[in-house]
Amino acid sequence: KNILIIPGDGIGQEVTTWGKQVLEAIAAKYGHEFAFDEAIMGHTAIEATGNPLPDETLAKAKASDAILFGAIGHAKYDNDPSAKVRPEQGLLKIRKELGLYANLRPILLFDELLDASSLKPEVLRGTDILFFRELTGDVYFGEKNRNADNTFASDLMNYHRYEVERIARKAFEAARTRSKKLCSVDKANVLETSRLWREVVQELALQYPDVETEHMFIDNAAMQLVKNPKKFDVVLTANLFGDILTDEASQIAGSMGMLASASMGDGTGFFEPIHGSAHDIAGQNKANPLASILSAALMLDIAFGLQEEAKAVTNAVADTLKAGWRTGDIANAETPADKILGTNEMG
Amino acid sequence: KNILIIPGDGIGQEVTTWGKQVLEAIAAKYGHEFAFDEAIMGHTAIEATGNPLPDETLAKAKASDAILFGAIGHAKYDNDPSAKVRPEQGLLKIRKELGLYANLRPILLFDELLDASSLKPEVLRGTDILFFRELTGDVYFGEKNRNADNTFASDLMNYHRYEVERIARKAFEAARTRSKKLCSVDKANVLETSRLWREVVQELALQYPDVETEHMFIDNAAMQLVKNPKKFDVVLTANLFGDILTDEASQIAGSMGMLASASMGDGTGFFEPIHGSAHDIAGQNKANPLASILSAALMLDIAFGLQEEAKAVTNAVADTLKAGWRTGDIANAETPADKILGTNEMG
Ligand SMILES: CC(C)[C@H](C(=O)O)[C@@H](O)C(=O)O
Ligand SMILES: CC(C)[C@H](C(=O)O)[C@@H](O)C(=O)O
Repeated sequence: KNILIIPGDGIGQEVTTWGKQVLEAIAAKYGHEFAFDEAIMGHTAIEATGNPLPDETLAKAKASDAILFGAIGHAKYDNDPSAKVRPEQGLLKIRKELGLYANLRPILLFDELLDASSLKPEVLRGTDILFFRELTGDVYFGEKNRNADNTFASDLMNYHRYEVERIARKAFEAARTRSKKLCSVDKANVLETSRLWREVVQELALQYPDVETEHMFIDNAAMQLVKNPKKFDVVLTANLFGDILTDEASQIAGSMGMLASASMGDGTGFFEPIHGSAHDIAGQNKANPLASILSAALMLDIAFGLQEEAKAVTNAVADTLKAGWRTGDIANAETPADKILGTNEMG
Repeated sequence: KNILIIPGDGIGQEVTTWGKQVLEAIAAKYGHEFAFDEAIMGHTAIEATGNPLPDETLAKAKASDAILFGAIGHAKYDNDPSAKVRPEQGLLKIRKELGLYANLRPILLFDELLDASSLKPEVLRGTDILFFRELTGDVYFGEKNRNADNTFASDLMNYHRYEVERIARKAFEAARTRSKKLCSVDKANVLETSRLWREVVQELALQYPDVETEHMFIDNAAMQLVKNPKKFDVVLTANLFGDILTDEASQIAGSMGMLASASMGDGTGFFEPIHGSAHDIAGQNKANPLASILSAALMLDIAFGLQEEAKAVTNAVADTLKAGWRTGDIANAETPADKILGTNEMG
């Protein structure tokens, strides 16, 4: 298997080092052959080439069997709303070019981290959510406009029926293999896009009578997710709503530093932590590498069908947490100082 | 003062009864004269007239000094994405017609309810957030399209500079009277609308050098609000993001049943709970009337400048909670059964 590593920006560099080493360890232990290549993207790529997604990176991405990505973004651009070239364009473009329309974000809760969350343990215990976030449509990719005198700006929120259908189908199929419950989140009381979304999901639900389908407004979902996360199983939603809900849901897992994601289309899969580039802690051996390591596990499972190998990685993470080891983001007031590790030690 | 009561749909009917009675009690006690009128809106108005916002209601609204509104919506329309006439159109239209561009949502935390939340008390204690949600622009009011064969739908997300400026100014002014911290939430790494938003807020910030201004992406804000709500004071955001964040934030106050809001423009103010019509408990004497009562307090304070009277209402709510009285939504496992009240008893 050919695996492309794209570290990206900020802590992306440090955490992918460990995702990669875990893949190497798995290859050695189970007798697989993984060939690694590396490429640049984001701020790092702008600095080197002026382009957030150089052609060479895209070509390597298309030629690979799976991609392990780090993180993207830099404060420099965040505070300069008029910048024309931006790191995020690299990520959005590679999602589009690889046709990665289905972003899977499992909210995996390790019992050992129940106390790391701001939510009460009794609210969290037993939570197991799988998000299906649409990733190549919505207001992210609609036409953008700014008038000449800078007094007006717009972004077109939009969906085609086939875009809703293909991600919804993936979510229904996944629901079948889990507890047969699907919650589709939209804002159909206000948005035409959401009304089309809801119609398509309603139609598809007829083909999955064994799956209990529910529709929820995004405002209510953002509330219920904090109030009673256990009530969710498979959650299906659009690009923008998914961006918001999954970040919010990261607090269920105790920290953004724990959450992995898989972006799938019809070709190469793309695996990345849901956390950002966190430049404030970059290069300080502070970042939590577990999200990257768990992204590697998702790659083994989803891209390569290596379930046993994937399980070995997840178990290693669980064992490490059980033994009391923590990075700063998942430590709490009771964690002994000598149990708090840096990125490299945790890796 | 002429006060228009619009009960709207579902539990809106029951809760506004109590908001109104509190206003009557205040008038009697402090020697004010409040004249009340009533009007219909939403599903109730569709049933009666076919129109979610009848002309008569709009005329009465424009002629009044302040409006106490209940709730809107009905499951019938939620599950029928193709319905052309919808209750919510009434609410959106009255917001637009009255020019209610600034929606203030204070997250008022009563110490007695610290345990009613799914968040840990130590995470909550001391939280005091004031949201400024823009209410008459964004993707809510942009052009909507659906193609003839139902394979495509769109909504235009958009902002004019003046729309951002006027709400931002209100938020900066409020920050000055509080702890001088303002957090503006957008998605400027992806949306052109957000980049205009951020530019305008950055420019305005120069006029408020005494206010510490921060910009945050919506996904991060949705996460931070759960992780560490205390870090927020005044939060400024667009219509859609504000809808999502304030519902999420309701869990800080223990329940949606506790949160009031004020919608202001240049004329009549509009006061309403942030909760919905909750048809599942409507007419059963179960709804929490405190959000409507606290909306009446906001009316006294903001629309009429009656601070002492407003304080009397808020204190009465605090005393009632201190005495142990609860409605079902704010009770917990330790609440004695005889302390759990219905809508009318709580009112
Ligand atoms: C960096 C940004 C463009 C991206 C998004 O909004 O999709 C990120 O927040 C994510 O969730 O992957
Ligand atoms: C009912 C609905 C249209 C409304 C909104 O989205 O603005 C509600 O959720 C609110 O927050 O007032």
